Amino acid sequence: MALALALGARGKGRTWPNPAVGCVLVREGRIVGRGWTAPGGRPHAEPQALAQAGRQARGATAYVTLEPCSHHGKTPPCAEALIAAGVARVVTALEDPDPRVAGRGHAFLRAAGIAVETGVMAEAATRDHRGFLLNRCAGRPMVTLKLASSFDGRIATASGESRWITGPAARRHVHALRAAHDAVMVGGGTARADDPVLTVRGLGIAHQPVRVICASGLDLPETGALAASVGDAPLWLCHGAGADPARRSAWQARGARLIEVATGAGGGLDPAALLSALGAAGLTRVFCEGGGSLAAALLGAGLVDELIGFTAGLALGAEGRPSIGPLELAHLAEAPRFALTETRPLGPDLLHVWSRG
Amino acid sequence: MALALALGARGKGRTWPNPAVGCVLVREGRIVGRGWTAPGGRPHAEPQALAQAGRQARGATAYVTLEPCSHHGKTPPCAEALIAAGVARVVTALEDPDPRVAGRGHAFLRAAGIAVETGVMAEAATRDHRGFLLNRCAGRPMVTLKLASSFDGRIATASGESRWITGPAARRHVHALRAAHDAVMVGGGTARADDPVLTVRGLGIAHQPVRVICASGLDLPETGALAASVGDAPLWLCHGAGADPARRSAWQARGARLIEVATGAGGGLDPAALLSALGAAGLTRVFCEGGGSLAAALLGAGLVDELIGFTAGLALGAEGRPSIGPLELAHLAEAPRFALTETRPLGPDLLHVWSRG
Repeated sequence: MALALALGARGKGRTWPNPAVGCVLVREGRIVGRGWTAPGGRPHAEPQALAQAGRQARGATAYVTLEPCSHHGKTPPCAEALIAAGVARVVTALEDPDPRVAGRGHAFLRAAGIAVETGVMAEAATRDHRGFLLNRCAGRPMVTLKLASSFDGRIATASGESRWITGPAARRHVHALRAAHDAVMVGGGTARADDPVLTVRGLGIAHQPVRVICASGLDLPETGALAASVGDAPLWLCHGAGADPARRSAWQARGARLIEVATGAGGGLDPAALLSALGAAGLTRVFCEGGGSLAAALLGAGLVDELIGFTAGLALGAEGRPSIGPLELAHLAEAPRFALTETRPLGPDLLHVWSRG
Repeated sequence: MALALALGARGKGRTWPNPAVGCVLVREGRIVGRGWTAPGGRPHAEPQALAQAGRQARGATAYVTLEPCSHHGKTPPCAEALIAAGVARVVTALEDPDPRVAGRGHAFLRAAGIAVETGVMAEAATRDHRGFLLNRCAGRPMVTLKLASSFDGRIATASGESRWITGPAARRHVHALRAAHDAVMVGGGTARADDPVLTVRGLGIAHQPVRVICASGLDLPETGALAASVGDAPLWLCHGAGADPARRSAWQARGARLIEVATGAGGGLDPAALLSALGAAGLTRVFCEGGGSLAAALLGAGLVDELIGFTAGLALGAEGRPSIGPLELAHLAEAPRFALTETRPLGPDLLHVWSRG
């Protein structure tokens, strides 16, 4: 199952709206087939592993990181394929919460006389499939928030200078994290201030995550890096109902996808509505790279699932720009809390990963 | 030598103005004596190890973390004692930069026919003796700055609530760090806002470091915890020339030691003058626990040698109080930089240690 999880993880960021599943077929103690969900979500992991195993699948045990599907979608159901191949036993980590599956895959297999065991390495699988599970159960993608700051929590000097606070190793890691998510998201302020491209670079990876910009008024530079790179990677612009129609049509003409989202009291996009819209559009894993206002809105709404800090060994002082905007906490007890899951040096910087409690 | 360093470290925070030295005597592959500088700085490490070894010291090798002294201070010189005991070989980590020693200890031993080897584990010894070396070479103590903050670098909510951001394990570690320093230092703002006692508690340690409060105007609560605890641990108040004479004599009458320090342009104590005064008073290791203004003053002047961060898994937002005050940096390149030396989880919090580059 550990191998199946590792194989499944290869698909992270590339299989949405489908889950990134891994499958290993074992016969008489020997691995006879390995598969993982292909980019785009098809073919699924199981048929690939079965194809690799060929006739060796007969009598084998299939280890699958998620319950095999039992419904006819764009591919024939995997449960049927496992039965047809003569697999003797199926071991899964989790039940698929998708209402079209939800136990039916397991039941279908059992009805065909296959021994089914489930819940194996369920915790690790829940972590790996967090984005997919959240999308199915809460209708929103998983949100990973990245904060790269000085050790006093600043992301730029008072004058806005931010290149570079963290070193090349941390920046390379950020590109790898982008590649493992369905989408990279920033707020309008960051898009205006930094003019970022938000693509995956320097890793030999051709696949590009969707780029999501949250700008309620659509006031984005029309001649910047984002506008120039619409053809290189999908660009989704989330805006409020009040966004200027001329701006809307101009961005649409350029090739961007426009998503209208309800706004909150302050005029900014409502974070829950934003994530619902992204979930409905199929995203399962969103990597938010700031800025401070968007980070605060997501944290304040309890919508950040994983927090990844890169802390550099320098101090910028109280005038520096804060990594997280105002949270309007009345009491310390109201502060959003996270549990530390990993920490290690990364070049000259410190990497620390926290998970929502 | 590693054992000698570990023994020497036991004296950290208790031997000032003397260095915390360790000594191990080895004869025919067997340890025959161990010693470390006693609280108060006397007796030194070598005579204690020699006393333990007795006649077994004859022909032994002495491992000492610092060059043995050769001058008659409050104790007879250690070099003489090593010669008198018949030690055959002396291995040291460092030369003592004290002008009364500065190679004379080594020369004295060699002149008596003892084989002397030096520079063994010099890097580790330089780290351990950093406070003593800085005092002798730069006339100031080593400064360790502690920052306990939320992961966005805040030490309290906007309303000043700060109990507790970090957990019990981090707070216990802070008490251990206090005990390993000669003095604990805070700014006047922290003394007024938090009314701290600044003593070592909960570790079964009777020894208390000096408490240093930096308050240029001496405007400190006269009925608070500090005033009430003058008898429990030394209290030194660093103030400017303009501090009210009535306040001075009131604090002096209570038992505090008053140290007048030059003030800078902003009216606060000049950080270099402050540390010179503390160095002249004999301190070798100072543990600064904030607040933001004092931290910024020390960082801005390049006077922080070690930085210890405790990061909690919660966000307080941009209105929270910053861990470091304004640094007035014109450019990112001017930011004080540190190198990561250690990181690990500490209860629910993250410990990270940085050293001046």
